[in-house]
Amino acid sequence: MKQSMMFIPTLREVPADAEVKSHQLMLRAGYIRQNTSGVYSYLPLAHKVLKKIEAIVREEMHNAGASELLMPALQQAELWQESGRWYSYGPELMRLKDRHNRDFALGATHEEMITSLVRDEVKSYKRLPLALYQIQTKFRDEKRPRFGILRGREFIMKDAYSFHSSQESLDEGYDKMFAAYQNVFARCGLNFRAVIADSGAMGGTDTHEFMVLSEIGEDTIAYSDTSQYAANIEMAPVIETYEASTEVKQELVKVETPNQRTIDEVVNFLHVSKEQAIKSILFKVDEQFVLVLVRGDHEINDIKVKNLYGASVVELATPEETKNILNCVPGYVGPIGVNEGVEVIADHAVKAVVNGVCGANEENYHYNNVNVDRDYSVAKYADLRFIQEGDLSPDGEGRIQFAKGIEVGHVFKLGTRYSEAMDATYLDENGRSQPMIMGCYGIGVSRTLAAIIEQHNDDNGIVLPEAVAPFHVHIVPVNAKNDVQRELSEKLYSQMNNAGLEVLLDDRQERVGVKFADSDLIGIPVRITVGKKAEEGIVEVKVRKSGESFEVTTEELSSKLDQLLGN
Amino acid sequence: MKQSMMFIPTLREVPADAEVKSHQLMLRAGYIRQNTSGVYSYLPLAHKVLKKIEAIVREEMHNAGASELLMPALQQAELWQESGRWYSYGPELMRLKDRHNRDFALGATHEEMITSLVRDEVKSYKRLPLALYQIQTKFRDEKRPRFGILRGREFIMKDAYSFHSSQESLDEGYDKMFAAYQNVFARCGLNFRAVIADSGAMGGTDTHEFMVLSEIGEDTIAYSDTSQYAANIEMAPVIETYEASTEVKQELVKVETPNQRTIDEVVNFLHVSKEQAIKSILFKVDEQFVLVLVRGDHEINDIKVKNLYGASVVELATPEETKNILNCVPGYVGPIGVNEGVEVIADHAVKAVVNGVCGANEENYHYNNVNVDRDYSVAKYADLRFIQEGDLSPDGEGRIQFAKGIEVGHVFKLGTRYSEAMDATYLDENGRSQPMIMGCYGIGVSRTLAAIIEQHNDDNGIVLPEAVAPFHVHIVPVNAKNDVQRELSEKLYSQMNNAGLEVLLDDRQERVGVKFADSDLIGIPVRITVGKKAEEGIVEVKVRKSGESFEVTTEELSSKLDQLLGN
Repeated sequence: MKQSMMFIPTLREVPADAEVKSHQLMLRAGYIRQNTSGVYSYLPLAHKVLKKIEAIVREEMHNAGASELLMPALQQAELWQESGRWYSYGPELMRLKDRHNRDFALGATHEEMITSLVRDEVKSYKRLPLALYQIQTKFRDEKRPRFGILRGREFIMKDAYSFHSSQESLDEGYDKMFAAYQNVFARCGLNFRAVIADSGAMGGTDTHEFMVLSEIGEDTIAYSDTSQYAANIEMAPVIETYEASTEVKQELVKVETPNQRTIDEVVNFLHVSKEQAIKSILFKVDEQFVLVLVRGDHEINDIKVKNLYGASVVELATPEETKNILNCVPGYVGPIGVNEGVEVIADHAVKAVVNGVCGANEENYHYNNVNVDRDYSVAKYADLRFIQEGDLSPDGEGRIQFAKGIEVGHVFKLGTRYSEAMDATYLDENGRSQPMIMGCYGIGVSRTLAAIIEQHNDDNGIVLPEAVAPFHVHIVPVNAKNDVQRELSEKLYSQMNNAGLEVLLDDRQERVGVKFADSDLIGIPVRITVGKKAEEGIVEVKVRKSGESFEVTTEELSSKLDQLLGN
Repeated sequence: MKQSMMFIPTLREVPADAEVKSHQLMLRAGYIRQNTSGVYSYLPLAHKVLKKIEAIVREEMHNAGASELLMPALQQAELWQESGRWYSYGPELMRLKDRHNRDFALGATHEEMITSLVRDEVKSYKRLPLALYQIQTKFRDEKRPRFGILRGREFIMKDAYSFHSSQESLDEGYDKMFAAYQNVFARCGLNFRAVIADSGAMGGTDTHEFMVLSEIGEDTIAYSDTSQYAANIEMAPVIETYEASTEVKQELVKVETPNQRTIDEVVNFLHVSKEQAIKSILFKVDEQFVLVLVRGDHEINDIKVKNLYGASVVELATPEETKNILNCVPGYVGPIGVNEGVEVIADHAVKAVVNGVCGANEENYHYNNVNVDRDYSVAKYADLRFIQEGDLSPDGEGRIQFAKGIEVGHVFKLGTRYSEAMDATYLDENGRSQPMIMGCYGIGVSRTLAAIIEQHNDDNGIVLPEAVAPFHVHIVPVNAKNDVQRELSEKLYSQMNNAGLEVLLDDRQERVGVKFADSDLIGIPVRITVGKKAEEGIVEVKVRKSGESFEVTTEELSSKLDQLLGN
């Protein structure tokens, strides 16, 4: 492609409103432009990279046995009413009416639609398993679109769905998809981890998120420093054990702690360690009030509370509710003397606290020398806290460390959530009707593009891995008005095109400094500079990633490129 | 691909609600399913054909110098307000509000968005011309979606836009696109014509529609039986000349014609020829009333009336308006004695009518022996009628014939319609600000798929041309339980895959009759039947299109396929 014909509006300045590197670079390199908040155009360079990512996704989906289809973005409301999500999805689901005043959703995801499609056509166990996918534009009206195309309102997604007649078949399909996802992200040159994620009420390890490691990630990953273990921090179980100290239990005392509300304030004021403090928080678990205790240096993980009760909703009690139930303002809550309507549960670590400190359920007072069983009772001990750096890895191997991640993929065992709600059944070997067992598998294609750039850049611009680069080679004549340089550039351009390389030729009438800066910015792996030595048949090869450059004769060029491009 | 893993829900019955062949066949062959009125899912086979069509489109766009991008479907209302189309587009434009109550349109077309994008980035004549395109899902809330994906509400379109600094450059860009379109449709195996189309107020030959010839087409094409001339019937000028008869002018008489309203009724009743009748219709041209006269055997073409006046809107006068203006009910309207506020215009043919018949502007009465200039006046003569079969071709070569066509493409010189409304300017060589001159070019990608099937089918199903077939070869073992047949089928399958052929292997446990019927239905060009002679290394090759079949040894197979598939 000749650059004069391509639309690559590069910018010299860093756009003021772009916070993260990938967003800045994609604007500067003429990859994207914003149309309105969270809505972007992919300009030709970005489009070429997207097509490369999509081609990788398609190959891996094909290898995983999935076939591609394309469902509509316009989804009649009736489908979402069948699943119940018309009512529960909230404002993120964009809705509209057609000319006949019928309600539609704009596809945020396609579980309902694929379930409806497959239930109408597949009636027998003989047609299962079945795996289908699409690569499609999705719509989600994010409350706070940000970071460019990392969190947009219109984005490109690969969504796959599988249908099975047994749990074993689902497991097998899930494993194939899991492997395909690892291949996709590895081929895209990403440093990523597959992490155990929250599967809601289903629990267990039935869902994984694929996280690209990045400081700007919105999720925290807990991973082992020695094994392959990795989980979303919300999901990592704590397997630490705690031994109670043998110190003598002291007498319980009530102490005045005026305006000392937080754990930090209280332990400083009372000159005790955070490990001695007992953090007590009142939650509303569905309709029941529960007082949750963890050690002062720990944080409560409400997903664990939710899973312990198998609850639908876990929320912090409001100050009003706290006042009503415990007759106390938040900051001074504690487990001593709470009435019988409130269940007290505690993290395992609390059991080992001797002569601890806790709120007195009275404003400006705490208790000291608190000891469980003597001073208060615990209905249940469980793992209720977030894992911390330094904790034992849940698989028993190594210690936990934290990293931030950008979620680019998600594999999920849906089970019969949709097939039961929408009556998607098949006849089994015995002629009995059974709900199909489903899995779903998503990849944020446009987000993957941003994640790749977030991981692959330097001070001069984007540095794309060859597998997803928009072009393999960038030919830049130093002086566009010099006939020898221009002719040699054109000659190399057509030779390389004929050899199957993807080449961008900078045929613009620009100063060489502008051309070099643009070349570095847009991130093509190899640049060939055609300068004064063109007359001798010598050009300069520059490797974008290493910065390494050297001269070669035009005869040597082809074999040199083969080496560099690993072909 | 193995058939057991693909989703091809074929049907034996012709679906009751599918009127046209392509719709019936796409449902029966498991190509598409309707989700709701005018909204379809493209199942794996259709998806593969779409990708082939898209690849052809991309190649031809590339050759025409256009580069691909992807703009969003969500378009902020402000853009459409700038162009004015927010108010003029009507209910076909789907509209919605986001969570902040901001108005959006769902992209029905992208003139506004591309104009906004390019005006923000291109400031100099040095960056022009520029041609950009996208292949994208479009939304148009059709009043009467029909014929399956031929007229849907969500469909796939290739839309290209070009920007120029001179009319000559636009002409050049237009010609390149025109040539690219001819290549696209020829490569898709379509029998089509590029026809001169209505460009609204711009007139002339600045727009062409690409019409696939088909009885179910909604447009009528007038084409020359000897030359390359073809035009939408609405656009074809009439160049016939008419000589008045030399018969003696008779005295004007008013005759009673009770309940004789139509031309047919009146000429039968009065025993005259249709050529002697003068059809008189009252129109409202913008705010002016105009009485239009054509000969009784001709039809008024209101686009010609519109163009004659350079009007925005031409409508039939309502019965109430006719009553008010002419004091007459429709059916008895005529040019004699109309008041001065109404302009009378006539088609050239009317001038030659001697002793004609026309309405008397009085219910149940007509005039006979009507002669122009003596009995009534005509303000203007012009070409005001539709061309008819047998008329001279407008290029002077041959006679006109009619055909029906399905519009699959449209190339259009927009000029400065959008750049002026949206202030998309550039600085010319002299530093003066000028509006960009634009062209736009659309291909209905999903409609092209339907049009191909409409032209390529037989009693047994779809018969796809190789260039767009979902697979090249279909391997069908006769007896799925026979090890020799199954193993030979698998072996041929992997050999052909390795040779770069796209192969579908029917590995289902189905009766051979079912497999053959499905194979014919889905339209793969070559079927290889692996039957009893598998033991001798002999298979049957069947050519879908001709029905021809013959036996070959597995050794000969590869060269035979090369011949058949033109490779």
